[in-house]
Amino acid sequence: MPFVVQKYGGTSVADSERIRAVADHIARTRRSGDDVVVVVSAMGKTTDDLIRLARDVSRVQPGRELDMLLTAGERISMALVCMALAELGVAAASFTGSQAGIITDGTHTNAKILEVRGDRLRDAVARGVVPVVAGFQGVSEAHDVTTLGRGGSDTTAVALAAALGAETCEIYTDVTGVFSADPRIVSTARRLRQVSFEEMLEVAATGGRVLALRSVEFARNHHVPLHVRSSFTWEPGTWVTEEVPVMEQAIVSAVTSDASEAKCTITGVPDRPGVAAALFRALADAQVNVDMIVQNTSLEGTTDISFTVPRTELAAATAVAESLTPTIGSAAVFVDEDVAQVSLVGAGMKTNPGVTATMFEALAREQINIQMISTSPIRISCMVAAGSADQAVRVLHTAFGLDG
Amino acid sequence: MPFVVQKYGGTSVADSERIRAVADHIARTRRSGDDVVVVVSAMGKTTDDLIRLARDVSRVQPGRELDMLLTAGERISMALVCMALAELGVAAASFTGSQAGIITDGTHTNAKILEVRGDRLRDAVARGVVPVVAGFQGVSEAHDVTTLGRGGSDTTAVALAAALGAETCEIYTDVTGVFSADPRIVSTARRLRQVSFEEMLEVAATGGRVLALRSVEFARNHHVPLHVRSSFTWEPGTWVTEEVPVMEQAIVSAVTSDASEAKCTITGVPDRPGVAAALFRALADAQVNVDMIVQNTSLEGTTDISFTVPRTELAAATAVAESLTPTIGSAAVFVDEDVAQVSLVGAGMKTNPGVTATMFEALAREQINIQMISTSPIRISCMVAAGSADQAVRVLHTAFGLDG
Repeated sequence: MPFVVQKYGGTSVADSERIRAVADHIARTRRSGDDVVVVVSAMGKTTDDLIRLARDVSRVQPGRELDMLLTAGERISMALVCMALAELGVAAASFTGSQAGIITDGTHTNAKILEVRGDRLRDAVARGVVPVVAGFQGVSEAHDVTTLGRGGSDTTAVALAAALGAETCEIYTDVTGVFSADPRIVSTARRLRQVSFEEMLEVAATGGRVLALRSVEFARNHHVPLHVRSSFTWEPGTWVTEEVPVMEQAIVSAVTSDASEAKCTITGVPDRPGVAAALFRALADAQVNVDMIVQNTSLEGTTDISFTVPRTELAAATAVAESLTPTIGSAAVFVDEDVAQVSLVGAGMKTNPGVTATMFEALAREQINIQMISTSPIRISCMVAAGSADQAVRVLHTAFGLDG
Repeated sequence: MPFVVQKYGGTSVADSERIRAVADHIARTRRSGDDVVVVVSAMGKTTDDLIRLARDVSRVQPGRELDMLLTAGERISMALVCMALAELGVAAASFTGSQAGIITDGTHTNAKILEVRGDRLRDAVARGVVPVVAGFQGVSEAHDVTTLGRGGSDTTAVALAAALGAETCEIYTDVTGVFSADPRIVSTARRLRQVSFEEMLEVAATGGRVLALRSVEFARNHHVPLHVRSSFTWEPGTWVTEEVPVMEQAIVSAVTSDASEAKCTITGVPDRPGVAAALFRALADAQVNVDMIVQNTSLEGTTDISFTVPRTELAAATAVAESLTPTIGSAAVFVDEDVAQVSLVGAGMKTNPGVTATMFEALAREQINIQMISTSPIRISCMVAAGSADQAVRVLHTAFGLDG
């Protein structure tokens, strides 16, 4: 019997009407003969509301208590989905992360799944009951409630699909799939029918907000095909799967942009071994997540090093860089928040050498200056002035023949 | 070291300000050297809001899912109380009913506590951590989440106090204690310093809303002294304890009233053995909770039977009574919803024979007609017209010297 995991995000269960629509879709899936395990997020803005309440109550939010608080959200939505299913005559039962056997490490607010003990869910499915599982949450080996951090519900869904042997993991959201660019920026953006895990990872890492990077990585590692689709239109969306060799592979699948980073430049860095190592070790020790790094060619024994970090970590990064000035003998530290990263993603790049040139030419024609460059086998990212980012995305979308 | 269980009801944790005030009181209790275990209800009207949401989503609310839904409420309040304690530098940790070891039977929405496995809470207390426990909830032996029904958080608090060996269970609420009558009805009502468990049971059973009957019964059976007090004024309230023999015991401690019941009368019932049994067995089978029962003296081989039931069960009771008419050969069924029960409660009644006469005289002087009477060793209840109930309470409060 076909077996699918369906994950419904916060907008998909935002109110009682949406919950009834979701229940109706689950009932239809059951009637078509499929076994289903459902994973739900908290309703709409519940999580934000709870965080606001926590800040109202206290300046201190211990992780264990924050996890206890936030996990109330999925508890509410999953119980309501089960009730709506009951009204439709579909046998269903809700399961907390703990009840579903999602065993994690003890890192509160950002726990990692260690193991899925799927016996209770398997029993429920065998009895014809639809398990409705709380996304985003688990339980540590010390029996404390944990949460999985950003994109946690997607990760729960993929982990269950892998552990229970589902054929597909359907991720229902408020968009109809993964697009060749953000439709709010590029009006001609097209929905992709299929992308590879590797492409999806690059899209997620460079500003695509449909799927969290972590859940894609989990799906790739466990060979779980994802189907990203809309719970508002229910139309077929985008499949994220192993790379399928095709005759005419699109060179570029998607153009993404990300304005969440800032640039830090250290000038006059002595060009000798160990200096860069000292800098990036100190940044790592300060929990700063460095993304792009560019080091200029050395001139007269000194060089400039630029790197990008999440805006929220810029202050910490600058403090580290400045504190190292006496040690490494650098000249000055400059920051630039007026930047955005624009990326091309496509599995076809691997076998098409001209992509970089085409990209640079397209940007040059529009007088868009490239400040930094970073590449992977299936991605090219350029840092540009923040104000040029949307224009850059549109130009590249056209230059690579993606306009629908 | 003194050891107290403190239970905070919904109004005591209704918003962030109240939660900070509660945390402050817990911190003061800790500083005074006491060990504390805290039990909290859901914030304010959270439970009502969740029930409304459930009705919005579905006409069917399976008990298991209703319990899953409602237990989100205490999860939120207990996490917030722990955060507020963290800000005050008090080490605290929240525990769900399951984590606190509250093992219940599987009767969803009205589970009974089978056992308290207090190891985790004892460990926390031993490490100097204040456990903040979700009231109202437990876990069944099949690992399903359960709730304890009406007054469930009080029951949790008393059960923990008994299992952990606390000296006192403090019940914090929005009134300052147990009164000689409802202050909204009798302006001269006084707060009682002390009442016995037996008196408190009668008060709870006859309309006093401060404590649920079940938790008082539990406290009596496990010899847990209760202290009912206000989380708004923090002044000492009413102690509910084993009866203390005193020289000059008040004959009557409190006057209560209850307008939640209705009266059902069956006329022309053949006066032969087994007829009443058939009636009340049928009512019990229909889950109707009968309170008072009066059967008149037989006249010419037939009698009238009157009984009271909760208003919400009147329709079911009437249907049962009417369905039995052909079988038992009774004449007719009448209902009266315009009734209220007025009760005197006092441990001193046992040794003071004149109480009933004084009560009836006081009511007669005011032309208040007594429709039904029921008594226990420490209570006399009269059914009167609903419109006379408040007047009856005031008259009796004065007649028994209770005016402050």
